[in-house]
Amino acid sequence: MTLKLNQITREHLNQELKLTLLLTSIEIKSARNGKSYADFQVQDQTQKTTLRFWDYQPHNSEPELPMIVDCAILVGEYREQLQLTLKKWESTTQTEITVDQLVRSSRWNPEKMQGWLRDYYEYIEAEHIRELIQRMVFEEPFYEKYCTYPAAKTVHHNFMYGILQHTLEVLKYVKMVAGTKKLTQRQVDRLLAMTFLHDWAKIIEYEPVPSESMTVEGRMLGHIFIGAHHTRNMMDTIPNFDDTDALIILNGILGHHGAYEWGSPVLPKTVEAQILHQADKLSGDIESILSFTEDQAARDDQFTDKLWNMGTDYFKGGIT
Amino acid sequence: MTLKLNQITREHLNQELKLTLLLTSIEIKSARNGKSYADFQVQDQTQKTTLRFWDYQPHNSEPELPMIVDCAILVGEYREQLQLTLKKWESTTQTEITVDQLVRSSRWNPEKMQGWLRDYYEYIEAEHIRELIQRMVFEEPFYEKYCTYPAAKTVHHNFMYGILQHTLEVLKYVKMVAGTKKLTQRQVDRLLAMTFLHDWAKIIEYEPVPSESMTVEGRMLGHIFIGAHHTRNMMDTIPNFDDTDALIILNGILGHHGAYEWGSPVLPKTVEAQILHQADKLSGDIESILSFTEDQAARDDQFTDKLWNMGTDYFKGGIT
Amino acid sequence: MTLKLNQITREHLNQELKLTLLLTSIEIKSARNGKSYADFQVQDQTQKTTLRFWDYQPHNSEPELPMIVDCAILVGEYREQLQLTLKKWESTTQTEITVDQLVRSSRWNPEKMQGWLRDYYEYIEAEHIRELIQRMVFEEPFYEKYCTYPAAKTVHHNFMYGILQHTLEVLKYVKMVAGTKKLTQRQVDRLLAMTFLHDWAKIIEYEPVPSESMTVEGRMLGHIFIGAHHTRNMMDTIPNFDDTDALIILNGILGHHGAYEWGSPVLPKTVEAQILHQADKLSGDIESILSFTEDQAARDDQFTDKLWNMGTDYFKGGIT
Amino acid sequence: MTLKLNQITREHLNQELKLTLLLTSIEIKSARNGKSYADFQVQDQTQKTTLRFWDYQPHNSEPELPMIVDCAILVGEYREQLQLTLKKWESTTQTEITVDQLVRSSRWNPEKMQGWLRDYYEYIEAEHIRELIQRMVFEEPFYEKYCTYPAAKTVHHNFMYGILQHTLEVLKYVKMVAGTKKLTQRQVDRLLAMTFLHDWAKIIEYEPVPSESMTVEGRMLGHIFIGAHHTRNMMDTIPNFDDTDALIILNGILGHHGAYEWGSPVLPKTVEAQILHQADKLSGDIESILSFTEDQAARDDQFTDKLWNMGTDYFKGGIT
Amino acid sequence: MTLKLNQITREHLNQELKLTLLLTSIEIKSARNGKSYADFQVQDQTQKTTLRFWDYQPHNSEPELPMIVDCAILVGEYREQLQLTLKKWESTTQTEITVDQLVRSSRWNPEKMQGWLRDYYEYIEAEHIRELIQRMVFEEPFYEKYCTYPAAKTVHHNFMYGILQHTLEVLKYVKMVAGTKKLTQRQVDRLLAMTFLHDWAKIIEYEPVPSESMTVEGRMLGHIFIGAHHTRNMMDTIPNFDDTDALIILNGILGHHGAYEWGSPVLPKTVEAQILHQADKLSGDIESILSFTEDQAARDDQFTDKLWNMGTDYFKGGIT
Amino acid sequence: MTLKLNQITREHLNQELKLTLLLTSIEIKSARNGKSYADFQVQDQTQKTTLRFWDYQPHNSEPELPMIVDCAILVGEYREQLQLTLKKWESTTQTEITVDQLVRSSRWNPEKMQGWLRDYYEYIEAEHIRELIQRMVFEEPFYEKYCTYPAAKTVHHNFMYGILQHTLEVLKYVKMVAGTKKLTQRQVDRLLAMTFLHDWAKIIEYEPVPSESMTVEGRMLGHIFIGAHHTRNMMDTIPNFDDTDALIILNGILGHHGAYEWGSPVLPKTVEAQILHQADKLSGDIESILSFTEDQAARDDQFTDKLWNMGTDYFKGGIT
Repeated sequence: MTLKLNQITREHLNQELKLTLLLTSIEIKSARNGKSYADFQVQDQTQKTTLRFWDYQPHNSEPELPMIVDCAILVGEYREQLQLTLKKWESTTQTEITVDQLVRSSRWNPEKMQGWLRDYYEYIEAEHIRELIQRMVFEEPFYEKYCTYPAAKTVHHNFMYGILQHTLEVLKYVKMVAGTKKLTQRQVDRLLAMTFLHDWAKIIEYEPVPSESMTVEGRMLGHIFIGAHHTRNMMDTIPNFDDTDALIILNGILGHHGAYEWGSPVLPKTVEAQILHQADKLSGDIESILSFTEDQAARDDQFTDKLWNMGTDYFKGGIT
Repeated sequence: MTLKLNQITREHLNQELKLTLLLTSIEIKSARNGKSYADFQVQDQTQKTTLRFWDYQPHNSEPELPMIVDCAILVGEYREQLQLTLKKWESTTQTEITVDQLVRSSRWNPEKMQGWLRDYYEYIEAEHIRELIQRMVFEEPFYEKYCTYPAAKTVHHNFMYGILQHTLEVLKYVKMVAGTKKLTQRQVDRLLAMTFLHDWAKIIEYEPVPSESMTVEGRMLGHIFIGAHHTRNMMDTIPNFDDTDALIILNGILGHHGAYEWGSPVLPKTVEAQILHQADKLSGDIESILSFTEDQAARDDQFTDKLWNMGTDYFKGGIT
Repeated sequence: MTLKLNQITREHLNQELKLTLLLTSIEIKSARNGKSYADFQVQDQTQKTTLRFWDYQPHNSEPELPMIVDCAILVGEYREQLQLTLKKWESTTQTEITVDQLVRSSRWNPEKMQGWLRDYYEYIEAEHIRELIQRMVFEEPFYEKYCTYPAAKTVHHNFMYGILQHTLEVLKYVKMVAGTKKLTQRQVDRLLAMTFLHDWAKIIEYEPVPSESMTVEGRMLGHIFIGAHHTRNMMDTIPNFDDTDALIILNGILGHHGAYEWGSPVLPKTVEAQILHQADKLSGDIESILSFTEDQAARDDQFTDKLWNMGTDYFKGGIT
Repeated sequence: MTLKLNQITREHLNQELKLTLLLTSIEIKSARNGKSYADFQVQDQTQKTTLRFWDYQPHNSEPELPMIVDCAILVGEYREQLQLTLKKWESTTQTEITVDQLVRSSRWNPEKMQGWLRDYYEYIEAEHIRELIQRMVFEEPFYEKYCTYPAAKTVHHNFMYGILQHTLEVLKYVKMVAGTKKLTQRQVDRLLAMTFLHDWAKIIEYEPVPSESMTVEGRMLGHIFIGAHHTRNMMDTIPNFDDTDALIILNGILGHHGAYEWGSPVLPKTVEAQILHQADKLSGDIESILSFTEDQAARDDQFTDKLWNMGTDYFKGGIT
Repeated sequence: MTLKLNQITREHLNQELKLTLLLTSIEIKSARNGKSYADFQVQDQTQKTTLRFWDYQPHNSEPELPMIVDCAILVGEYREQLQLTLKKWESTTQTEITVDQLVRSSRWNPEKMQGWLRDYYEYIEAEHIRELIQRMVFEEPFYEKYCTYPAAKTVHHNFMYGILQHTLEVLKYVKMVAGTKKLTQRQVDRLLAMTFLHDWAKIIEYEPVPSESMTVEGRMLGHIFIGAHHTRNMMDTIPNFDDTDALIILNGILGHHGAYEWGSPVLPKTVEAQILHQADKLSGDIESILSFTEDQAARDDQFTDKLWNMGTDYFKGGIT
Repeated sequence: MTLKLNQITREHLNQELKLTLLLTSIEIKSARNGKSYADFQVQDQTQKTTLRFWDYQPHNSEPELPMIVDCAILVGEYREQLQLTLKKWESTTQTEITVDQLVRSSRWNPEKMQGWLRDYYEYIEAEHIRELIQRMVFEEPFYEKYCTYPAAKTVHHNFMYGILQHTLEVLKYVKMVAGTKKLTQRQVDRLLAMTFLHDWAKIIEYEPVPSESMTVEGRMLGHIFIGAHHTRNMMDTIPNFDDTDALIILNGILGHHGAYEWGSPVLPKTVEAQILHQADKLSGDIESILSFTEDQAARDDQFTDKLWNMGTDYFKGGIT
């Protein structure tokens, strides 16, 4: 089996490795001595990284990206970190490899995740709420995107199947809190529904992987508005959708960032909405610490760099 | 002609005055000596105030509010301010007086305001944008509410015709800035449209005057979301509504509070949206200073109390 | 069985009820007419409330508080809320009733809670960490206090068995997150240990119920310092306590408020510490919303008042 | 006619262009290979930019700056942006060209602006306030500086005639608001006066263009203090200057930044002062968005970079 | 010798005491039973307090305040605090008592303080700086006010001789820091000068004691601006006043609040100015803690109430 | 005598100087042309600086740092600042030079400082407090570290004897304030004790000079906790240590950063603790301004760069 990006270690120092990678962008730069070089953004399912290519000649025709490429990579070192230099690259001839196999992906099994998603759906009892989730999540043109899109551009769950994995984590947390605090079944129904839908609109806010861009609509309107807007309209297609449930679920979507300064136009006005907010934050923050610490595991220091969204560095001493 | 609330001055001290007022709420309180009294919230078109009624006996049947009442009011003084005590009251027999005549209202003429609103509409040139404003503003079931609802619960434009007056002020300001900064006609069209619509959803967020309450939908979802939601849906009923215009107008509505911490889920992303935000703030802030200073004009001090939304007191010395 | 405070409803209006209550303080006040009255702070296991007593005569000797008293209470109403007036009171003669039975208490069963606490202890595998928790929690002079003290003065878990219930909630949350995010056994050990100990020092910071006071030591040093200080000293009594585990557990205790401005002198430096902080906040915040909403359930409004620690009001419409 | 800096486009790629420019600074840098190069700051009336000069040899005598230079410029590209390299330069021999013709300037006609300024002056009716503005603005040694100095170092109106253009914008805005809100003539007089004077002291705080420096006095004392200080002294030279008008105008100058954290030592204490503050902010903010968007118009992206003073990026899609 | 306000203790409970006090204001209030009573603000040199007078009859002619009155005061208790009720009062016939003897005053000896002030003056060596302080401080029409005015309305040094005592404290602190950090003599000269002048303008910002009001000029312009303005003008009367010294001293006055949000329009730009800011804060904060703790010394609690300007309560246990 | 780092000036431009320096780290970097170079961190007792070494060849064995080296340094210039290039270096053969002689150190005499420290100790009268300071400061294993460790990593007192010099400054300031405000002897005792101990734990938080690192324990627990923890334990070894004194001294240590957001877990609850906080800040801030200004003295500008911890730049014009 071929080597993966996250398997390259100091043992490969000064070796030239062969990898098949997904090339997502090429940025051409000029050194001060007038020569141009290029930074290649590549990834496989385990990691994203940058390869420096010194002899880049701008082509007549730009390569069509993303492209699957076979690479020869020299493993060097700079400031105690591994540095990868691209020596050769060409469009792959391995026709059996697809883009989906090479985008950085959740470590969780996609099929299992879809099963678990269905399991949480089954906990909902109220018919109109079941119908809402059925139409918004489990039916096309939404379901495929919902199961594959990333949940962020950076920091956490910013990979294929990101919405799916993140939503499952939050469903798990909110259901446990609801049980502990003995919420009523109707509260649980609403809580699960708003959790299913809180990041739903990221299928509209983001471009699909391997792109890391937001759509123009996403940047202008944001997933908070887009999600509540589509949900409200879908509710209106369901006969006799209970008014109170509607307002509570919509408030939960609008309020899931938890505070005005984090982009929620209204605050969480129910205990369900507050549980969702905190469970969402918990899932995102913990994932960001874990993936950041892992990215910096190879370094020598006892602490990571400062993780910007958490505002602190992390101790690596206790991780075996 | 009968006396109005804002015409009561120190000259009436110790007199008993007859006024016809709109009674909007009665709050019963107990004094420590065990006797109960009541605070009556009343208004006429010039002012809202509280009358204390010492001999209140809870009725078998609560009076149906709002109710037009003939009052006998004793003018007293407490801590250098006039204090009004209600001596007698009864449901009026003057059948020609309507509730609308007694709710606190804009000083601007309602018919003229409707004419001016149409004038600003005529500055819009793009057909699809004209159509949007025509359907959202000038057609029922919206137009009557848009022309009569208040623009706030407290602080500024919290009176009948409040949305109308406030919107006209903002239209005037944005149009002038657009001219000064030489925006294109299409920018002006979008800027006028988002100005027409920025507080539109207050017809859903608030109860009509003389109520000062918000609707449950208003408290759970807010006029920012509701306005953008209805606008988006209305745009979708207009064939070939330009995508870019749609996003810019919607961003203008969502962003008109100007900052996350003031409840906008996205920031203003165009110069039009930023002009709207600042003109909206200018209209509201200046109105709040003027009406607050007027409320406190009768007092002796050289400065007003602190106006909470502006964070400071105001000098009354320069007002003749 | 006798009536409990939380069972008094509008149905009792104008009735005089007999209750046995715990009297915790008497505050004497003067009305403007020169007469003095008193506010009695009372509680039973379901609720705390204030009773007004109009005919209070200061005694030669102050009653020794807390005292169990038999009360005759008249149920009245003020501003749409029930108001309880104390008509008669005397020290109870029911000798079988103890103070512990009348202090406001967790609704969870104390014996079961002690069992669950032991269950979580059993998940810890590392011997030295087990020993630390054994000595700090399960042995005297700590265990009885740990199992009965409140976890706060106001807002949440401010009742008998408060530390116990709150700690169990947090243990449940952190264990589930640890499982979801696949932490190592040693990480789980440390996470459970810091959770057991994070509010341990409230047995020193607070007076026992029914007092609501903090000790002088608590106000001068705070439970964050006191807890870490005692933990460090206890670690030093355990031979070969692993240095890294010690630092991580202590950092978890010091950092469990999550931010400098919330009183943590260092930030959470491990993923364990961050999980603890968020689970702690989740437990406290959700409890505060639920108990506040319940306190205000009897009122007519569709929303509660503003809950100060959460910064917003809550919708009561969806609670059946 | 010669090419201007803002006319260079992709069509000139790889061409060598001749321009006459104002050279304002030379910064010598060393590349890592030991060779030195220089960054030349240049401008003409349309734009400021940086030219890189690779073969710079430090001269025995530094060139005296600012200097008018004839340049040969090679148009290249770097990261999708045009990059200008200076190939040759020499002090110009075109004796008819003056520095004033080459400094970046307002697009508004200077003579017309002076006429408009006089027009606004004529709206003032009170003699003592007219006299104040006459002496502070329209007489030397102030008038020439007032008509030519920039209103900022960066961000907005940071060009020749900047104070003049900015003041005219603000005069226009405040006059319209004053009319809409029906201020008295005396209020209008004071409002126009404080507007004329609010940035007056930038003629002392800044060096004249093309310098972008502040004076030492400007950095130590600031234009807020300096302006109020000189205005107070000038008022004292006018017999019987009304005390109330004096305090209100001075408070308007001191308070025009609108908040302590923006450098005002007192808050705006009149409605005039608050109108001035908001109109001032409106003029500056909108100008900064427009000029920043224009600077980035040539790039490919649909959004600008983040504009630091506004805290967000801007959508370029709606600008034709 | 007569009793002073700060000598009234629990030992006087239920006694009627005779004191001669300065009456500074009378506020008439109505009790709910319709009777009016009055709150008398009184002081002597040791304390300010409020006396309640139950039988107040509004006079035909308001008494001219401040007035020296002989009082009969009944000592009662309310909520564990002494409460003083005024039983009788009349304008004093003791002609030898002056207002100055009865206003709350510094405990430091006024004559000694004037001597010390002169001592600090003598540490200044540069002639032009000596001349500045001579004219601004030691000459009329300033000197008498400088030596008697209060340094604040509330919180600290809000008593007769307040500027004098506060300035002496700050002079002492800055001189010691300057010595420790080995500033040059010229730096010391400037530091002493800006310290002498930093609160100078409170002689214009405040009314003289016993008034606690600010002047209109003070509220509109603030002592920061007023002080720097007069200092700049006085410097201009001194031939050849060094420019650099002038800017540094003025920056020290403008910057002595230390931060924009505390009302300084420029930040301290020299080490002298920063020393002044911190010494000023130290003097004020410590004085406010000491006087607040003393005011609350008689209460039973182990901690004071929260002191608003410091944001915390204080422990009284360690004060013997 | 040999040249010191702070004696190198423009007069040495283009000369090659010989210095004996302490080499504390070597960081190897790659230029884009593929060649590697190294940045050498060096210091002597007067200054720390970076020397660039172009021809660095990674050795088989890393040099053992810190190492005393004889250097040949070429003085160049870059952007108006001196730039030092290392031409040759080798481990010194001057066996009489020790590391301690070459680490950057306080300018104050170490022996004298120890004498002064003893002097302040003698001001303490209470036996148990004397004993506490005797054991914590003047006895081993603490005394040597206390007298040599730095008080910070950057900004202020970040040199050998840093804790000692900083503590002496603060002792001087607090003693003077205590005298001015007439604190009792017991308050003075406690104030001196908490001052002696406030930064004591930096002997555990930091590595000794010339290292600039923090220990892992320091980063995980912080000197605030560590100091109070050890102090509490030491108090427990002293028979009959007064409880109130203990709490006040510990609160002073915990609260010496003065605010939650600066890392104090409790606020200063006594006037002693507040004096300590402000004196500590005064010592640190003023030192940071002085040393930063001195570092930038050689530059041409009239103002320094912005000093990050103070948030502003400083004027250099008044320093002769």
